[in-house]
Amino acid sequence: MQIVTSIEQMQAIALDYAKEKSVGFVPTMGFLHKGHLSLVEQSNKLCDHTVVSIYVNPSQFGANEDLGSYPRNMTRDLELLGQYKVDYVFCPTTEDMYPADYRTWINVEELGSVLCGASRPGHFKGVATIVLKLINIVHPNFMFMGEKDFQQIAVLRTMLKDLNLLTQIVPCPIVREPDGLAMSSRNSYLNPAERKQALCLSLAIQLARKLFAQGELNPSEHRNQTSKLINEMSGKVDYISFVNPETLKEVKTISSETRIILAVYIGKTRLIDNSSMSE
Amino acid sequence: MQIVTSIEQMQAIALDYAKEKSVGFVPTMGFLHKGHLSLVEQSNKLCDHTVVSIYVNPSQFGANEDLGSYPRNMTRDLELLGQYKVDYVFCPTTEDMYPADYRTWINVEELGSVLCGASRPGHFKGVATIVLKLINIVHPNFMFMGEKDFQQIAVLRTMLKDLNLLTQIVPCPIVREPDGLAMSSRNSYLNPAERKQALCLSLAIQLARKLFAQGELNPSEHRNQTSKLINEMSGKVDYISFVNPETLKEVKTISSETRIILAVYIGKTRLIDNSSMSE
Repeated sequence: MQIVTSIEQMQAIALDYAKEKSVGFVPTMGFLHKGHLSLVEQSNKLCDHTVVSIYVNPSQFGANEDLGSYPRNMTRDLELLGQYKVDYVFCPTTEDMYPADYRTWINVEELGSVLCGASRPGHFKGVATIVLKLINIVHPNFMFMGEKDFQQIAVLRTMLKDLNLLTQIVPCPIVREPDGLAMSSRNSYLNPAERKQALCLSLAIQLARKLFAQGELNPSEHRNQTSKLINEMSGKVDYISFVNPETLKEVKTISSETRIILAVYIGKTRLIDNSSMSE
Repeated sequence: MQIVTSIEQMQAIALDYAKEKSVGFVPTMGFLHKGHLSLVEQSNKLCDHTVVSIYVNPSQFGANEDLGSYPRNMTRDLELLGQYKVDYVFCPTTEDMYPADYRTWINVEELGSVLCGASRPGHFKGVATIVLKLINIVHPNFMFMGEKDFQQIAVLRTMLKDLNLLTQIVPCPIVREPDGLAMSSRNSYLNPAERKQALCLSLAIQLARKLFAQGELNPSEHRNQTSKLINEMSGKVDYISFVNPETLKEVKTISSETRIILAVYIGKTRLIDNSSMSE
């Protein structure tokens, strides 16, 4: 496992391996958990080489968000990655990624401005831009991403298609704690009481799926009941949406493909989760 | 010379040649003139393979601009290119380049909103987006571009650097008619009287260079005298600017590196030209 911090060095390596081998890429912001590691495992299975990036991308955080406090532990991350077949860990500096005269931004219209994009203006512009930069540096054939960030996958898949990039996204299932909480680096913000409250997200999903199984197809009814559950567990709903998984547009009638996607504040921590109605 | 209209086919070819050979790329909107052909010549000199694209990119035209009337003559273009070593001519369709659900746009802040970007809002967003798409399809090592579109080169050079693309721009000198008019596909719009009036652009540049040689370093004085010359020749100034060639910011004192850059309406036709003070 080689640790690379220089963009030029990573590109030189990439240009070389891309000629011969299939390359899997797992972009992360570090503070790795089993969700990330499941992506590395998938890449190991499907590709000759695996590259993991660790970079807390400032451009996807809003001015009042948690960039400063976002959890970091590089030593532990490298230790965890050492247990897998990771060929390169790319850890660039912000000075290199966004020099003072940096000016170029990617905008994925519509998909990037709804749901989390409405709550976090500019977030997906930052995500799309950093991922395009990373792809241009790493030259992967496949990019492994967790479905917890469902909208992120939709935005990036559109960007890749629109810009004629050949890198393909491999979406991987959400990894959950035994009690159902979707794994997230931000779970580390939760105190013991909040950790219990945080179960409201996965319970709301379970409720929606139960309602659907019982024949309830009306999104308003779903929203009312899931909101009620979340409120009762002291969560504060940012949004609960029932969307078409491709267009992310709200559906009028829920079907088995419909995605429930939600963001909830637990104390000061904003958590997200999502599911189809039939998983 | 192979003519390719399918994006997938062009990418398959590109992935193959990019492994071994150096590739020069000349993106054009067709209706080729000696300026374009000088770029092809340069590519022939420096690269193993040369790819020329012919595509009138709708996204860089404003709603009230000349997309509909922009001159086209594919038969003549292919005949002209046949006289050079052109390996591939890439002529995609708009249906393929911008399908109905197209959503991704590139914005190069500051550089894309001044000068021509101020007169033509959205123009450089369209230019940056199409060039990024073409680069992702053609995979060139070098991209040959004429300095007549000076701002375009500045915008694209920044985009390539910011997005960590390895394609390098090779700027090539403006090719002029014997009387000094910079070659442009849009010159075909000019009637005989306008063709004479159009000389005001190159004459304004000559005047500025003469003033500079005489020691005049004040941009206001330069602007006054060149505007006067253009008005007298029935041109209508869109802008005349004296800028730093890297940042495109207006200078306070003219030096030999300062670029005079101007856009002028001759009748309904908008023409551009530029020069350093020392060429």
